[in-house]
Amino acid sequence: MQSYGLARRLIDESAEIHRAAFYIPSLKGGIERLRRMPAITAPTTARYPFTCTLHQGAIEAIFHDDMKTEGLGIDRPTIPVSIEVSEDQAELEDPHAYPVKVRFSLMVCVTCLKQAATQVVVQHLDRNDTEVIRAKFVLGSDGAHSWVRKAMNIEMEGDMSDFIWGVVDINPDTDYPDTRNLAVIHSPEGSALLIPREGDLLRLYVQLADADVIDPQTGRLDKARTSPQKVLEMAKRILRPYRMEPIGEIRWWTTYIVGQRVANQYSVKDRVFIAGDACHTHSPKAGQGMNASMADTHNLAWKLAYVLRGWADISLLKTYEFERRKFAVDLINFDRQWAALFSSGKAGLKGNDDTLHDMFRRNGQFTSGIGVRYDPSAIVHNAYQAAATNLIIGERMVPHVFICASDARPVNIHDMLPADTRFKVLVFVGDITDEEVAARVHSLGEKLSAPDSFLCRFGHGGISAVFDVICISASNKQNVDWTDFPRVLNHHWSKVLLDDEDMHGRSGGGGFAAYGVDPRLGAIVIVRPDGHVGMVAPCDCLEAVNKYFSAFMTTAVS
Amino acid sequence: MQSYGLARRLIDESAEIHRAAFYIPSLKGGIERLRRMPAITAPTTARYPFTCTLHQGAIEAIFHDDMKTEGLGIDRPTIPVSIEVSEDQAELEDPHAYPVKVRFSLMVCVTCLKQAATQVVVQHLDRNDTEVIRAKFVLGSDGAHSWVRKAMNIEMEGDMSDFIWGVVDINPDTDYPDTRNLAVIHSPEGSALLIPREGDLLRLYVQLADADVIDPQTGRLDKARTSPQKVLEMAKRILRPYRMEPIGEIRWWTTYIVGQRVANQYSVKDRVFIAGDACHTHSPKAGQGMNASMADTHNLAWKLAYVLRGWADISLLKTYEFERRKFAVDLINFDRQWAALFSSGKAGLKGNDDTLHDMFRRNGQFTSGIGVRYDPSAIVHNAYQAAATNLIIGERMVPHVFICASDARPVNIHDMLPADTRFKVLVFVGDITDEEVAARVHSLGEKLSAPDSFLCRFGHGGISAVFDVICISASNKQNVDWTDFPRVLNHHWSKVLLDDEDMHGRSGGGGFAAYGVDPRLGAIVIVRPDGHVGMVAPCDCLEAVNKYFSAFMTTAVS
Repeated sequence: MQSYGLARRLIDESAEIHRAAFYIPSLKGGIERLRRMPAITAPTTARYPFTCTLHQGAIEAIFHDDMKTEGLGIDRPTIPVSIEVSEDQAELEDPHAYPVKVRFSLMVCVTCLKQAATQVVVQHLDRNDTEVIRAKFVLGSDGAHSWVRKAMNIEMEGDMSDFIWGVVDINPDTDYPDTRNLAVIHSPEGSALLIPREGDLLRLYVQLADADVIDPQTGRLDKARTSPQKVLEMAKRILRPYRMEPIGEIRWWTTYIVGQRVANQYSVKDRVFIAGDACHTHSPKAGQGMNASMADTHNLAWKLAYVLRGWADISLLKTYEFERRKFAVDLINFDRQWAALFSSGKAGLKGNDDTLHDMFRRNGQFTSGIGVRYDPSAIVHNAYQAAATNLIIGERMVPHVFICASDARPVNIHDMLPADTRFKVLVFVGDITDEEVAARVHSLGEKLSAPDSFLCRFGHGGISAVFDVICISASNKQNVDWTDFPRVLNHHWSKVLLDDEDMHGRSGGGGFAAYGVDPRLGAIVIVRPDGHVGMVAPCDCLEAVNKYFSAFMTTAVS
Repeated sequence: MQSYGLARRLIDESAEIHRAAFYIPSLKGGIERLRRMPAITAPTTARYPFTCTLHQGAIEAIFHDDMKTEGLGIDRPTIPVSIEVSEDQAELEDPHAYPVKVRFSLMVCVTCLKQAATQVVVQHLDRNDTEVIRAKFVLGSDGAHSWVRKAMNIEMEGDMSDFIWGVVDINPDTDYPDTRNLAVIHSPEGSALLIPREGDLLRLYVQLADADVIDPQTGRLDKARTSPQKVLEMAKRILRPYRMEPIGEIRWWTTYIVGQRVANQYSVKDRVFIAGDACHTHSPKAGQGMNASMADTHNLAWKLAYVLRGWADISLLKTYEFERRKFAVDLINFDRQWAALFSSGKAGLKGNDDTLHDMFRRNGQFTSGIGVRYDPSAIVHNAYQAAATNLIIGERMVPHVFICASDARPVNIHDMLPADTRFKVLVFVGDITDEEVAARVHSLGEKLSAPDSFLCRFGHGGISAVFDVICISASNKQNVDWTDFPRVLNHHWSKVLLDDEDMHGRSGGGGFAAYGVDPRLGAIVIVRPDGHVGMVAPCDCLEAVNKYFSAFMTTAVS
C-alpha cells in the first residue's frame, strides 16, 4: 500500500494491532490470561511493525478514490456469458493481436488494470442485448466462485477442512481487557479468536460444532441453522467470567467452513489470467485473503503493462503463474498447520513457545509479503548474490534509512521505490573522496551512459520512463557533494544518497553492512517494479545486468 | 500545523531544510565553503527537527481547503470605510452586546474565525452602497499597512533598519553544491542568503547598496531603480566561481528595507484586535513573519471562542496582548542582533561559533514556538512548577512517546493535543499495581468525578466538550490493563497511556523522568487549547486546579 502512496489513509482509517494475548481455562472456572506477546515478530528494519485491520469495502474505496484521480473506474453491472481464446498460435504470440473474445449480457467493459486500461478494451463489435469484446488479455479477479475460472475449465486442487467458524462484529461493552489486542481464547466452552477492528469494533470468531450448522441430509453448511445471536451467545460463554455485550446492533455476521484449495493453473495461453480468491482459498483468520490477492495482481500488473507498451516480450507473462502459484501452495500448506494448531487449543500454552513464535513469524511473512521469495527465472537472476549478501534475490527490497547527499535529509529507501512501473537501479559505490574509487565511479558512469548500456538499449521513450537510477555512496556527508557524481547518477539532486547519519544522529548509517555490500566492490541492485530484488551484480559486472534485461526486454528504437 | 491536523500536507508540499552551509571569501578569489552545520539546533524530543519552506499562497491554501470542509470561506472584495467602538462601559462589559460598528463599501462580511464565525457577524443593518455590521468583536489581520490599526490610531514603535535587500526566486542550473541547504554567503562582492524552496526552486537574498535602490530625492526605496536581472547579476557575482543560471524565467522578485517595529497596543477595549503583520514587522529572512502571525491568532482564537460560547469571562481576552506583544518585542530585539550579525559578514567565521550556534538556536525557538514562554497570568499559574520540573509552565507541552495501555501502540503525546479548543487534563499517576497507589488513584478519580470538581463545574455541555482527560501511568504494560483505572480516567480505551516501551523496544519509556514528574506524587498537567502548559499541580492539590479554572471560566448550568 505504501508503494502505491496509499499507506497513510489505510493506517489512518484502520486499527493498529501491536499485541497478541492468550487465554486458557482457569482453575477458578472460565478463562484467564496466560500471557501477551508482540502480534508481529517483525525484522528490526520493518517500517510498520504492526498489523492493520480495516474492512474490505474501505480498502477498496482507497483504491477506487485513487483510480478516480486518474480518470479510471469500475463498471460492475456487466455479466460475462462466454469466453473464447484463439487456437491460432501465430495470433497468440503476436503482442498486437486480440485473441480473446468475451460476450457480455450488458453494455460495455471489463475490470480495468490501472496501468493498462486504455489498451485492453479495443473493439465493441456488437451493440445488441449482448456485446462482444475482443481483448488482448482478460483477467478474472472474480472471487472464490470465479466465472472465468470455471469457463476456462481450471480445476481447484485441495479440500475443505473440518473447521467450521461463526463470526460476529460488535461494538463491545465489556470488562474484558484485551479488546484492542489480537486474542486467542481457549475455554472449557470452546475456542475463539478476537480481532480489533477500525473505530471501536471487535470481531469475534468462534469455532462451531457440526451439529450447530451442518445439514445432516446434505452434509453441507446451512447458515439458516444458526443466527448472529447464537454465535454471540457462544462467544459470551467462551469469554466467561468477562462480560461481553454489544452496544447497539450486531454489525455483521457469517459462518464458514475453511476451504484450502489452489487452482491448478493461473493462466490459459498467457491470454486469460485468474487472480486472488479465484486462484486460492484458505482460512480467513490469518488475514491472508485480500493480502494474497492484491499481491497477485501487483505481480501481474507491471508485466502486463510492459507487454502492452511493447517494452517486454510476451513470454514475461509466464512468470506470473510461476511466481504466484508457488506462493499460494506454500500459503495453504502453512494455513493447514496454523488452523490445526489453532483449533487444537494448544496455541497459547507454555512449552509451545517455539512453535507459536514460528507460526506468528511465518504468518506475518505471508501477510506482509516480507517472507515471499520468488524462484530463479528470466526476471530473478541470482548468480551474483555475493555482491549484496543480505538483499536476497527474489525477496522484497529491505528498508533502510540513508541520507540525501544534497540536503542531508533522512530517506527510507522504500520511499524511493514507488510502484510506478519503473525498474529501480540502485548503484552502490564506495567513498568517492578516495581518488581510485572516484575514477572507477566516473568510468562506471560513462559505461552506464553509453549507447550499449541497458539504460539506453531498453529505455523506451527515454531512460527515465523505464528506469530510475539511484546512487548510494559510502561517503561521509561532510566530505562530498551531490554534484561530485557523474551525470547518469546525479540526474536530480534527490537521487544521490549517502550511507551516513542525519544531522541529529537519529537515523541513517550502516546501510552497506546491513545489505552485505562491500564498499570496495560496490553493487548494482535491480529492484523490480513490484519491489522484489530481481538481480544484484558487482559494479564491474555491468555486462551481467545488460544480459538480465536482454532476457525479457525489447530494444528501444532510438 | 500538526495540532490542526495539517502538518502532513505542509511537509509533503514544502522543502525540508536540515542543513546550513557557510561560505567566505577564498584566497583563490571568489568564495569557498567554510563549513556546514545543522539548520536547526532542535531539542532531542523535537518531532520534526528541520525547517519547512513553502510560499505563503500554498500555506494559505492548506487552511482554506480545511475551512471548506467545515463550510467556511473568506470574502476578500470587501473594503472597510469606518469603525467605531462603543464608549458605553456597560455595553463593553456585556458579552452578549455588539459594541463595534464597521461600515463597508461593498456587500457583506468579515474574515471568519474558524471556531467562532457564525457568532461574530450578526446584523446587516443597511443594504445600500455601504453596509454597516455590528459585531461583538473585530479582528484586523490586515497586514503591515493595516487599515484597522490606523483607524484605531494604534501606533507602531521602532524604526526602519539600514539593511536593503533584493530577492529573486529561480529554478537553478548550477554547479554550486548547496542549493538544497540554507546558505550564508559572504564574498568580496557582498552578502547573500540562499534558501531552498519547494520543488527545485531556490530563493536568493542579496544585500543591496543604497545607491542601487534609494531615491536620493526622497531618501526612500524605489523598486524601479533596479530589476530582477540586476538582483540576479549581483547574486551571480557573489557566488563566483560557481555558475548560477535560471532555468526559464525568474519566478518572482522584490526589494525591501527591514522595518523593526511593534504596535503599542494589540487591542482597543478588548473588542477590536490586530494580529500578525498589523502588529509587528521584522526581517523576513529569519522566517518569522507568517510563523509569528499564525501564532498570534492561534493564541487569540480559542479565547474568543470561549468568550463567545459563554464559557469564559470576557477578561480572558486581556491575556492576548499580554502574551503576544511581549513575544513580538522579544522577537524584534532578537531580529536586530541577527540582522546585524548577518550583514557584518561574520556569521560563519570560526571563533563566532558560540554566537552563531546561539543565534541559530534562538531563531529556531522563535520560528517553531518552542522557545516561547508566556508570563504568569490568569491562565498561566506557576505556583506548583516543582510537580513537573521539566514541563515549564507557560511554554509549549514537550513531546514524548508513551504507549497506549489497551493496545501497546506507541503514541506521541502531541498527537493527543489537537487544537480542538479543549483543555487537555493530563493526569500522571504512579504504578497502580502498588495497592497504596491504586487506592490514591481511585480516590482521585472520585474527586475528579464529584460535582464540585472543575470538570463538572466548568464542563459546559458535558465534561468532554471542554476537557479531554488523559491518564498517564508509570505502570508496566505487562502488569496492568486500561480497564483497571477509574472511569473518569479510562472513559475511552485510547485515553490511558503507560510510560513504557512499545512491543519492539523502539520507542517509549522514560517519560516521567523526562517531564520531571515524581511517580509517587503524580501530577495534573493542564495543557491550554493552544498547546501551552497552563498549570501543573501534584495530584493531591486538586483544589489548586479548581481555583485555576475558577479564575477565568464561567460555571456550567447543570
